[in-house]
Amino acid sequence: MKHTAVDVIRAKRDGGVLTDDQIDWVIDAYTRGEVADEQMSALAMAVFLNGMTFEETARWTQAMIDSGERLSWPVPTVDKHSTGGVGDKITLPLAPLVAACGVAVPQLSGRGLGHTGGTLDKLESIPGWRASLSTDEIRAQLSSVGAVICAPTLGLAPADRKLYALRDVTATVDCVPLIASSIMSKKIAEGAEALVLDVKVGSGAFMRSLDDARELASALVAIGSAHGQRVSALLTDMSVPLGRAVGNAVEVAESVEVLQGGGPADVVELTVALASEMLSLAGVAADPAEVLASGAAYETWCRMIAAQGGDYSAALPTPRHVHVVPAPRDGVLSRLDALGVGVAAWRLGAGRARKEDPVQAAAGVLCLAKPGDAVVAGEPLLELHTDTPDAVEGALAALDGAYEVAGTAPERSPLVIEVVRG
Amino acid sequence: MKHTAVDVIRAKRDGGVLTDDQIDWVIDAYTRGEVADEQMSALAMAVFLNGMTFEETARWTQAMIDSGERLSWPVPTVDKHSTGGVGDKITLPLAPLVAACGVAVPQLSGRGLGHTGGTLDKLESIPGWRASLSTDEIRAQLSSVGAVICAPTLGLAPADRKLYALRDVTATVDCVPLIASSIMSKKIAEGAEALVLDVKVGSGAFMRSLDDARELASALVAIGSAHGQRVSALLTDMSVPLGRAVGNAVEVAESVEVLQGGGPADVVELTVALASEMLSLAGVAADPAEVLASGAAYETWCRMIAAQGGDYSAALPTPRHVHVVPAPRDGVLSRLDALGVGVAAWRLGAGRARKEDPVQAAAGVLCLAKPGDAVVAGEPLLELHTDTPDAVEGALAALDGAYEVAGTAPERSPLVIEVVRG
Repeated sequence: MKHTAVDVIRAKRDGGVLTDDQIDWVIDAYTRGEVADEQMSALAMAVFLNGMTFEETARWTQAMIDSGERLSWPVPTVDKHSTGGVGDKITLPLAPLVAACGVAVPQLSGRGLGHTGGTLDKLESIPGWRASLSTDEIRAQLSSVGAVICAPTLGLAPADRKLYALRDVTATVDCVPLIASSIMSKKIAEGAEALVLDVKVGSGAFMRSLDDARELASALVAIGSAHGQRVSALLTDMSVPLGRAVGNAVEVAESVEVLQGGGPADVVELTVALASEMLSLAGVAADPAEVLASGAAYETWCRMIAAQGGDYSAALPTPRHVHVVPAPRDGVLSRLDALGVGVAAWRLGAGRARKEDPVQAAAGVLCLAKPGDAVVAGEPLLELHTDTPDAVEGALAALDGAYEVAGTAPERSPLVIEVVRG
Repeated sequence: MKHTAVDVIRAKRDGGVLTDDQIDWVIDAYTRGEVADEQMSALAMAVFLNGMTFEETARWTQAMIDSGERLSWPVPTVDKHSTGGVGDKITLPLAPLVAACGVAVPQLSGRGLGHTGGTLDKLESIPGWRASLSTDEIRAQLSSVGAVICAPTLGLAPADRKLYALRDVTATVDCVPLIASSIMSKKIAEGAEALVLDVKVGSGAFMRSLDDARELASALVAIGSAHGQRVSALLTDMSVPLGRAVGNAVEVAESVEVLQGGGPADVVELTVALASEMLSLAGVAADPAEVLASGAAYETWCRMIAAQGGDYSAALPTPRHVHVVPAPRDGVLSRLDALGVGVAAWRLGAGRARKEDPVQAAAGVLCLAKPGDAVVAGEPLLELHTDTPDAVEGALAALDGAYEVAGTAPERSPLVIEVVRG
């Protein structure tokens, strides 16, 4: 049967279920440019408002995988994907930790957009480190080091790359079938046989409510399972920034602390929790906490950075300007809002408003106290780092109302809220 | 306040009512190219699925008017707009008839797309006739002849022209707020002080059901009234083709028959009904049936065609190939479906699939019988005219099941179903 874009859009517009054939055709034709951007955006809005069934979403994912190449690896691997949060540097300690436990990790990562940071932006603050590797280089490094963090190769899911850019400018981002198919098409095309998803919930995440996060986690796990992956999802709290550092170089420094046996408790806890789940999916019995403490993960980190041209012992960039926000009164920090801190770091230069913008390696926010910590009036609470002092005013505006000092400590909510398994 | 396309799309996506300011901004920014096609199509789909209030639609109309120039005329005028049908050549006899009754008619018309014909395509089958006039030429002809049928000038509602082309390829055409604002922005920008709308209902029309047609008619009349127009709408039947001729040259010939006092009864009836309503809105007491019978309208026709370079006495193009469809049995023609006949004429070459396609002047369908007429088995029922005999097969497929011969005459439904006044 011959399809037209108008027929496919009309079917979804009228609340119908797209056929496998319609989905295969529209994704392929969009990749080839036969279906135009303005047609795909109308379809995306119809999907946003009328939804897709699980079967449609799984087929849509498959069609996006089929739009490009599909990688495979010379050794067994396990992968992680986070839906994005504030201070979420977990990939940095996690990949070398899991590799040190004996399972290779090919972590094809993205750049930041908006208030959530990007793993590649963070690592690029290390002098010499390069994000782009060829598939052969990735394969060689997986065999020699066991851990790779790099940019996706261009041939992966080109349909998703086009559609993702389009959704960004057409208000069709926050839609579970489109988010789920985007994430899973990339991960499956990247050859992830086993995958742990870190689905963030809270003010600093895409998904603000637990119900929305559960829906997304279930969709992701179901799609992965349908494609033969071993897959599970951790729903984790993103109402507070992860760790104390939010930015690029500052997050690298904090990750190194964790790899050297120190660092903030929440970063260690989540790194170990994700590593355990990844090792369990890979069928490897190892205690990641023990391996972390042994220094083996830090050793893998150094080899991983060096393999990609980075100088792991070099000093990291420092900001030209530091603005200190003092605690407003004596007491206990009762609230520190992830979104407020994330937007502040973004405005200070750690993130980008448009894909083509550069980021500042040294920009970001250091949270000198986390909820539950005692603070003293007038003592430093937050440090704002930037090379562009003009940005401080906007960062302060983002932080207005984002923290609170109370008389008593707040109740602690769990970091790992629940686990969804395939 | 500073707007972004994403904010406006999101507001409508989430079921909100757009502010005046948002509508003004998005239409202006789209016209200037600051809002991209893919953003406008996402917004159009959100409007399609979530609707617009009357106030939003009226403002949207105003913003599209404000995107270009607004014409005014040296003499009092009255205008007609049809939502499009099969065999709908009514503008051709109507404009000179109303002019002959003493009110000037500046009829800025369109070309056909799909199975509904275009007034300009029909008139272009007259040797020498040209559709494009400058505003000054239109003004002069309104004063000298009183009737003009021509293409819209390019400066009129450019936002609508862009949006109309976009809707066509994104399945966002059949949406009352978008149809109503498109029609009314053009008509108001064209300087129509008084306007009669011919809203077609039935298989050959945009609006298949009477309820949908009523909704559109009410929206059109309400928008016109809100803009200070004298405006009314006739809901008229489009389940059967109008007249016997469907195509280009064949419809010109039939229009001339009507202007010379003959022609099919339904074409005469609708022409007179619309003329009466137009004259009533213009406040002119004249009997259009009498003026038609007097030959004055035909005389105005000849002057109108000649003023635009046309040779009104020249022979019209004839087709290279005529295929006759005989009546399948003796009896009375009980059904002749407008859509089937319209699609057949379109496939024979009378219409175009894409805006840039040419049309065949001589292509079309002649209906030798209309519902209620007696037919004899084997005698000609339909004539298919074309320059491309290969097209006959597709035309016959469109006509399959489009007509029926029964033992008794069908009930006649009224041509003018109801009138909606401001």
